[in-house]
Amino acid sequence: MRDSRDPLAAWRIATEPYYRPVGDEPRRYELAYGRRLPLILSGPTGCGKTRFVEHMAWRLGVPLITVACNEDMTASDLVGRHLLDAGGTVWHDGPLTLAVRHGAIRYLDEVVEARQDTTVVIHPLTDGRRLLPLDKKGEQLAAHPDFQLVVSYNPGYQSAAKDMKPSTRQRFGSMAFDYPPPATEAEIVAHEAGIVLPLAEQLVAIAGRTRALRGHGLEEGASTRLLIHAGCLMRDGLDARASCEMTLTGSLTDDPDVLRVLHDCIDATFG
Amino acid sequence: MRDSRDPLAAWRIATEPYYRPVGDEPRRYELAYGRRLPLILSGPTGCGKTRFVEHMAWRLGVPLITVACNEDMTASDLVGRHLLDAGGTVWHDGPLTLAVRHGAIRYLDEVVEARQDTTVVIHPLTDGRRLLPLDKKGEQLAAHPDFQLVVSYNPGYQSAAKDMKPSTRQRFGSMAFDYPPPATEAEIVAHEAGIVLPLAEQLVAIAGRTRALRGHGLEEGASTRLLIHAGCLMRDGLDARASCEMTLTGSLTDDPDVLRVLHDCIDATFG
Amino acid sequence: MRDSRDPLAAWRIATEPYYRPVGDEPRRYELAYGRRLPLILSGPTGCGKTRFVEHMAWRLGVPLITVACNEDMTASDLVGRHLLDAGGTVWHDGPLTLAVRHGAIRYLDEVVEARQDTTVVIHPLTDGRRLLPLDKKGEQLAAHPDFQLVVSYNPGYQSAAKDMKPSTRQRFGSMAFDYPPPATEAEIVAHEAGIVLPLAEQLVAIAGRTRALRGHGLEEGASTRLLIHAGCLMRDGLDARASCEMTLTGSLTDDPDVLRVLHDCIDATFG
Amino acid sequence: MRDSRDPLAAWRIATEPYYRPVGDEPRRYELAYGRRLPLILSGPTGCGKTRFVEHMAWRLGVPLITVACNEDMTASDLVGRHLLDAGGTVWHDGPLTLAVRHGAIRYLDEVVEARQDTTVVIHPLTDGRRLLPLDKKGEQLAAHPDFQLVVSYNPGYQSAAKDMKPSTRQRFGSMAFDYPPPATEAEIVAHEAGIVLPLAEQLVAIAGRTRALRGHGLEEGASTRLLIHAGCLMRDGLDARASCEMTLTGSLTDDPDVLRVLHDCIDATFG
Amino acid sequence: MRDSRDPLAAWRIATEPYYRPVGDEPRRYELAYGRRLPLILSGPTGCGKTRFVEHMAWRLGVPLITVACNEDMTASDLVGRHLLDAGGTVWHDGPLTLAVRHGAIRYLDEVVEARQDTTVVIHPLTDGRRLLPLDKKGEQLAAHPDFQLVVSYNPGYQSAAKDMKPSTRQRFGSMAFDYPPPATEAEIVAHEAGIVLPLAEQLVAIAGRTRALRGHGLEEGASTRLLIHAGCLMRDGLDARASCEMTLTGSLTDDPDVLRVLHDCIDATFG
Amino acid sequence: MRDSRDPLAAWRIATEPYYRPVGDEPRRYELAYGRRLPLILSGPTGCGKTRFVEHMAWRLGVPLITVACNEDMTASDLVGRHLLDAGGTVWHDGPLTLAVRHGAIRYLDEVVEARQDTTVVIHPLTDGRRLLPLDKKGEQLAAHPDFQLVVSYNPGYQSAAKDMKPSTRQRFGSMAFDYPPPATEAEIVAHEAGIVLPLAEQLVAIAGRTRALRGHGLEEGASTRLLIHAGCLMRDGLDARASCEMTLTGSLTDDPDVLRVLHDCIDATFG
Repeated sequence: MRDSRDPLAAWRIATEPYYRPVGDEPRRYELAYGRRLPLILSGPTGCGKTRFVEHMAWRLGVPLITVACNEDMTASDLVGRHLLDAGGTVWHDGPLTLAVRHGAIRYLDEVVEARQDTTVVIHPLTDGRRLLPLDKKGEQLAAHPDFQLVVSYNPGYQSAAKDMKPSTRQRFGSMAFDYPPPATEAEIVAHEAGIVLPLAEQLVAIAGRTRALRGHGLEEGASTRLLIHAGCLMRDGLDARASCEMTLTGSLTDDPDVLRVLHDCIDATFG
Repeated sequence: MRDSRDPLAAWRIATEPYYRPVGDEPRRYELAYGRRLPLILSGPTGCGKTRFVEHMAWRLGVPLITVACNEDMTASDLVGRHLLDAGGTVWHDGPLTLAVRHGAIRYLDEVVEARQDTTVVIHPLTDGRRLLPLDKKGEQLAAHPDFQLVVSYNPGYQSAAKDMKPSTRQRFGSMAFDYPPPATEAEIVAHEAGIVLPLAEQLVAIAGRTRALRGHGLEEGASTRLLIHAGCLMRDGLDARASCEMTLTGSLTDDPDVLRVLHDCIDATFG
Repeated sequence: MRDSRDPLAAWRIATEPYYRPVGDEPRRYELAYGRRLPLILSGPTGCGKTRFVEHMAWRLGVPLITVACNEDMTASDLVGRHLLDAGGTVWHDGPLTLAVRHGAIRYLDEVVEARQDTTVVIHPLTDGRRLLPLDKKGEQLAAHPDFQLVVSYNPGYQSAAKDMKPSTRQRFGSMAFDYPPPATEAEIVAHEAGIVLPLAEQLVAIAGRTRALRGHGLEEGASTRLLIHAGCLMRDGLDARASCEMTLTGSLTDDPDVLRVLHDCIDATFG
Repeated sequence: MRDSRDPLAAWRIATEPYYRPVGDEPRRYELAYGRRLPLILSGPTGCGKTRFVEHMAWRLGVPLITVACNEDMTASDLVGRHLLDAGGTVWHDGPLTLAVRHGAIRYLDEVVEARQDTTVVIHPLTDGRRLLPLDKKGEQLAAHPDFQLVVSYNPGYQSAAKDMKPSTRQRFGSMAFDYPPPATEAEIVAHEAGIVLPLAEQLVAIAGRTRALRGHGLEEGASTRLLIHAGCLMRDGLDARASCEMTLTGSLTDDPDVLRVLHDCIDATFG
Repeated sequence: MRDSRDPLAAWRIATEPYYRPVGDEPRRYELAYGRRLPLILSGPTGCGKTRFVEHMAWRLGVPLITVACNEDMTASDLVGRHLLDAGGTVWHDGPLTLAVRHGAIRYLDEVVEARQDTTVVIHPLTDGRRLLPLDKKGEQLAAHPDFQLVVSYNPGYQSAAKDMKPSTRQRFGSMAFDYPPPATEAEIVAHEAGIVLPLAEQLVAIAGRTRALRGHGLEEGASTRLLIHAGCLMRDGLDARASCEMTLTGSLTDDPDVLRVLHDCIDATFG
Repeated sequence: MRDSRDPLAAWRIATEPYYRPVGDEPRRYELAYGRRLPLILSGPTGCGKTRFVEHMAWRLGVPLITVACNEDMTASDLVGRHLLDAGGTVWHDGPLTLAVRHGAIRYLDEVVEARQDTTVVIHPLTDGRRLLPLDKKGEQLAAHPDFQLVVSYNPGYQSAAKDMKPSTRQRFGSMAFDYPPPATEAEIVAHEAGIVLPLAEQLVAIAGRTRALRGHGLEEGASTRLLIHAGCLMRDGLDARASCEMTLTGSLTDDPDVLRVLHDCIDATFG
């Protein structure tokens, strides 16, 4: 299905993805991209890291190839493999090789889910050489001038065993993300869910309560994404308590005591 | 065996599956489906989660593709793989890809049985992008407008190691299920087993006793499904004690002390 | 080698397998089979579970397909796989699929030896749906009306780690087996080994002693099957002590102290 | 290389293997073979179990197929597999299937080295059914009348984790082996190494010392086989101390203290 | 894509890689290469080991084949494998075999990431034999006269479990690297980032602070490479604090307390 | 590349490998080979075991096939496998089978690195039978009269978990190696490095110091091989301290305290 003239056409982003900047993070990203500095985007689940990199890829006019990392992902899944064709084995570029060869931002989502050792394959791409060794082809691929490597990770609940190794991490620049400040977050929720600002502010207030419970009964607080889900259901006519139950509380915990605290908080807010 | 005009014909549900609502759960589901919000259905074994999603798929007229998750399930099992044909390797869509491409409700039963890392493959389907990266094909698939992702899990006896990761869980809305209230459950048992209501009520009373033993000798209490099995055997002429032994007690434990308590309870009920 | 008219011919049981009922277990099985209720047969090693299901399959005229479960057994081993033929890949039904498609009793011997996760594949066959999803073929198979699933397990020495999950177990009815009462067991041993009843009674008495040592030096007592072996060797002219050494004691333990106790018991019995 | 008229020709034993009986073990074996009773041969390393089964196979005129069990051995290694030929996949019997189909004694050497779960594949061969399910072919193979299953194991230094499961063990009769009594052992060593009896007696005396150290510095004492090695080197002109060093001591331990004790013992014997 | 006249053309280094010697390490390397002595380059992340070997390969006019070691790397990945072609299986040299056959410096980056056992494959190349056994081809390959083996590793944070085995390590000579002395490091940073020396000296001073925190909150201090990244961003107009945040601090830790210390240090330096 | 007339031509040793006997080890080996007694060569890293077996293979005129054992090595790597050719699968002998079929000394270097279970495959080759079962071919191969099996291992730093099993070890004779006595070792170093004897004696004295530190800061002392490396660099003009640093100290440890002790010792020796 690939266009032979633009092999990355499917990964170009046609429409501007909505992103509401909190500080000067777009300029920082542009400077890093200018140097093709590999980047780590760190921050909690659902705070907007993926949306940010989509927005920046659109703004820079560079294709974006995303991989959701997981423990089963092998180096071959990233780099490519030989497949059997009618005429014998034929080499197929993996998504990393595609990005390196034709020039794209390669986004490894939740990089710590990949086996630490698999991430070693990206080392020669992240220093002065910008090379991808295709050991199985007996080739070395020099990176396209547009190629940049970006990875995301959530420093909050990773076990030490799953942390990035210093020798990998030191190859990257980094940008730290967090939930937006309450006013900004309410603006985002109102915009994305199509609800009025006061309602969005009430949801953001509840989110604040859940985030304060982090480490005290909750592994993580409610993300901006969950607030948007709650807003959408309310906009469709579901009452506030049910909307929050379906999105903010049941998606955070099964613990009956914590659920009671959260439901009291919802009732107090919307009561 | 697939119809080229309707590749999902085998997964359409022709006859209404019996489901007895306990509250407003059908409306909640319809609102969530309206937003194509991915959903977690949580609750104990055999309380009706699977039946509910079958009923809703029938009601909404959307095909339902179920996968019983297990630890051997790889991302390729969900997404698809290259198979060798007379003319070389040919791509075959996995069940997740089928649902994404042609529009179905994709139901991952007992999702925590899948390796946490495998579930990462569903991440890009559960945020604003609704994309399925087919890394091995070098393609990205945009989800069909009818596609929705639903997963079930039993929060009761899961080890912490098998809990859903917050970064996965926060991508879903949620609906909590439990055993129906006694009167409703007796109505269901009577209907499904074809027995009279008073007999069904006696079975439901015994179930209540087993559920009270949860954590005190039993890992889990008797499910509605087991009550129906007991009712069926009684309807076929087996005496109450033997029917309950074959369905309610022996299916819950091998512990002789607990079995004695349960058999006393059965004898007291039907004695 | 399969008959295209009766693909299960090899699994039909032509001659009545000897089974000596202890109670009303044949009737209970028939009622369960009438409802196609999936069954767990539990009990110690060698007490007759396998012989019972063979007898019932013969009595009901239904083919019996047995699988000895083991940890290497994959879902593909049960369900089927694509094999490479001259003309490309061809699907071959696994033994579970054979039973589901053509109608047989599917007997999973020592089901807890299978990986818990592999057993998940049988879930949709054990509820109202009676469906077998053939994910790798993109098909769903509705069970033949004759199909029933039966599993066996030995609750005695299973580690907790190898217990059945409640969510699997609650899908089954259950029948508990034990060694037959002494008089019945002696009758069985005499019949199967071709020895006189008093000799069989002596062997049964020794078995009782070994069963009393369970948990006190022995992991398990002597099974009916071992008694029959002892009886056979005695019938062939080996003296009682040597016959018991070769079947009852050396097959139970290597511990010299326990062996001495057992040999004293044999000498006292036959001395 | 197989003879199509006698597919087991390569496994027939043409010349009588030397075996010096210690008691009535040949008769016991013959009676067990008469009933085709599966057998466990237990005893320490190098005490003659393998030689015994070779001798009995020769005496009974039955081919002997030996497998040295190991943890990598899969059920397919025993049962068979599909191999790709010019015309597609073709089934090849594994060594167990060969023995079952054409009638041989199947000897699993050091059975506890096999994964416990792999041994489950032999269960249906060891009860009344004498069947081998070839799940991957969709076939059931009834055992040839000559087929018998024999396994060996060394109860001495097996970890509990590697013990045979009762449910496997109870399917077998058993014969316990040990080192022969000194006079018999000296006779064997003299015969096999071609040395005079007094020299063989000296070697047997040293072996006795090493066996007394078992559990007190040595994992196992010297086997009859090692004594024969020592005798052979002495017969070829190496002095007694060097011959024992090369076979009796260095093959038992690297511990300098234990080696010194053993060397003193050798010097005292031959000095 | 390989030139049949020079199969290693892609691995020849055309332009001199910048390397600023700290002592007589180039001469030491030349002497070691003269004897084709296998070498271990040890030292912290990003201190210039890889650049040094690139520089030496260029200086000696020998191709350089680099492998980033990882735990998934098998002996076959290094040595080669059979691939299926239209006419059957064809052997393809792996990168190690390429280097051995045609004469190159083979650089195993982060060798301790490879499984210890995989590294055994290099043993016969590192003693007098200089042989590579190609077991799967039934061949032995004598090394090309230009072949040398070089490995790097970081002794700082390797777990004991990942240390090199003495039997492997004793086959190598070794050269220890460290961060360059401050004046030299500032010179390198100024040269590579294109900034003035005083600014580079300030960055080196901050690096010194981070390196002093090693073992006291940081797993590793800032590498020379990170200082160059910081310098590049400053040269592109980003302020000093933001440049350091994006390269020196966020790439070292997520710990808020440690970050505060580092930011104070940056503010004090540039304030 | 194999000569069909002499399939082992590539493994014949044409030139006499230098070996300086310490005692009567060549005669002991010749006697053992005369009986084709399988041998264990034990001793520390780099003390000359491999050179010795090369020398003996040359002296006896028997080809030598070496395998560096590792944990990934499977039984198939030793025995052989089916490979796909234009006309289907074709059997290829592994290196063990080559040696067994055509007559060679088979040298398993560092046998304890192989999985214990893999070594079981060699059992039937090491008793009276001298058979290699090719289970995957359904064949049994009788060993060529010239075949002998030799394994090496280092008893010093093996963990108990990696020790040879008694049941394997008792199948072998054994020869213990150690570093040569100082005068002999100096002679070897002078000969191999081409330096004068007094210099070699100084290096041997330093080695003695490192060997005394074994278990007190060093896992193992410097091997003869490392002394030869040091001598070579000194002969090429590198000063004594630098030569020792590059070969004797940095190849033994990264511990700064131990390094200081060693460097003091070098300075004292050559100062």
